[in-house]
Amino acid sequence: MNYLYDELQVGQKASFGKTITESDVYLFAGISGDVNPAHINEEYAKTTFFKTRIAHGHIAAGLVSGVLGNIMPGYGTIWVSQNWNFRAPVPIGDTITATVEILEKMGKTVKIMATCTNQNGVVVLDGEGVISPPRKKIE
Amino acid sequence: MNYLYDELQVGQKASFGKTITESDVYLFAGISGDVNPAHINEEYAKTTFFKTRIAHGHIAAGLVSGVLGNIMPGYGTIWVSQNWNFRAPVPIGDTITATVEILEKMGKTVKIMATCTNQNGVVVLDGEGVISPPRKKIE
Amino acid sequence: MNYLYDELQVGQKASFGKTITESDVYLFAGISGDVNPAHINEEYAKTTFFKTRIAHGHIAAGLVSGVLGNIMPGYGTIWVSQNWNFRAPVPIGDTITATVEILEKMGKTVKIMATCTNQNGVVVLDGEGVISPPRKKIE
Amino acid sequence: MNYLYDELQVGQKASFGKTITESDVYLFAGISGDVNPAHINEEYAKTTFFKTRIAHGHIAAGLVSGVLGNIMPGYGTIWVSQNWNFRAPVPIGDTITATVEILEKMGKTVKIMATCTNQNGVVVLDGEGVISPPRKKIE
Repeated sequence: MNYLYDELQVGQKASFGKTITESDVYLFAGISGDVNPAHINEEYAKTTFFKTRIAHGHIAAGLVSGVLGNIMPGYGTIWVSQNWNFRAPVPIGDTITATVEILEKMGKTVKIMATCTNQNGVVVLDGEGVISPPRKKIE
Repeated sequence: MNYLYDELQVGQKASFGKTITESDVYLFAGISGDVNPAHINEEYAKTTFFKTRIAHGHIAAGLVSGVLGNIMPGYGTIWVSQNWNFRAPVPIGDTITATVEILEKMGKTVKIMATCTNQNGVVVLDGEGVISPPRKKIE
Repeated sequence: MNYLYDELQVGQKASFGKTITESDVYLFAGISGDVNPAHINEEYAKTTFFKTRIAHGHIAAGLVSGVLGNIMPGYGTIWVSQNWNFRAPVPIGDTITATVEILEKMGKTVKIMATCTNQNGVVVLDGEGVISPPRKKIE
Repeated sequence: MNYLYDELQVGQKASFGKTITESDVYLFAGISGDVNPAHINEEYAKTTFFKTRIAHGHIAAGLVSGVLGNIMPGYGTIWVSQNWNFRAPVPIGDTITATVEILEKMGKTVKIMATCTNQNGVVVLDGEGVISPPRKKIE
């Protein structure tokens, strides 16, 4: 299930939302090797500005990967580049919705805006990126 | 273990390397929701340009998180922004080394260059970013 | 540990119970590719009839696999067929007990009744199935 | 992203394919409690009819959940009942494609045929089921 270059339109959007859990954060700590106590040590985290463990910034970025790979443009998409601004913390238990918007069609590649917001509408992560849409249709 | 702003020097480097396994890719598929067959379907992947399943680009990015959060500057680091160029595919089984270099001290924040290379020295991911180093020393 | 065909008796029962956690549900989302927000998005789930995230139906089914493969008949069992009725939702945090009862010995295979109940005794999943018991004794 | 009852047509199909890995099998062993050595003990498995570790039958069933929850009918689908015939073993490393076909529209619910095939086209799991399609459109 996917959209080829010609099927994408400027302004088109797609989203994927997920509650970020302890298991997401702990598994990502293992995958990334980022065992910063801000993510996995509640006693330490109580002493920080955020007062509790927060998710790794690249977990929210991962949800954008979920939109691109699974929904729009979907299967076969290649991510070329991405700029990320980590704007606000994501405490464990927040629900993050990643939204991708098609900004510009540039010949073969496409410029996107990716935005992740929490359950209160606060932007936690955003940035522009470039993708190469799928070249073959997959049902 | 961490470095405060005053302890960081321009040109200072740190690295973290890891062999990217099937389980990393499959767990990240669940965390991100990105079940693009390029990552998890070997029969499909055989038909692609890359000929085999490749890791999600943000897994290599995660290793940079591992350097920043665990080694340099270490515990307490906050990632402000990052630009990523996904330059080459990472087939399952490749060993990726993430290296962070201090590019510039900008008052309170620090500009970094992050580079991920594979076991053959090929750059698979790179880009500049900005971090806020830890404010408290943790042994 | 296992029971051969001749050691099984009609009416014999065995059970396996487990509290279904967020990590079970999130890992199963990755294994199955089922990222339906009913399972992993609490904000969405609040708007549904069930009011909260619920486990995938096949996680309870998995506990029946746990009884068959690990307890009765145990190591070496082959599952031939199974009918499932998904009767009630399993919110994250519920404790599910899977019970298998031997209904009929049919020559080489055995007909079973599998029933999963929650901590309040409500049946959440049930159905008849057919298994092929182990052929070699394993202590 | 989903299909409401009125948008589904008899004969409509959707598929989701995935290579079943060790990590899928080992995580499912933990989720289900099914630690049958046929799944997780290669030395034991060498002595069995199948000669190697095979995936739990309900992992292939999980891929059908992936089709139903993620693709067709997609977000909001409720699975009412399902019959499974476990027809052939799935050794670790096989690529399984789950296909769901709409068999009959029955008023509010829908009868489906679910079929899982391996990379050689062999049916490993199949059966009829009943689902309740989503009641709200989700983009």
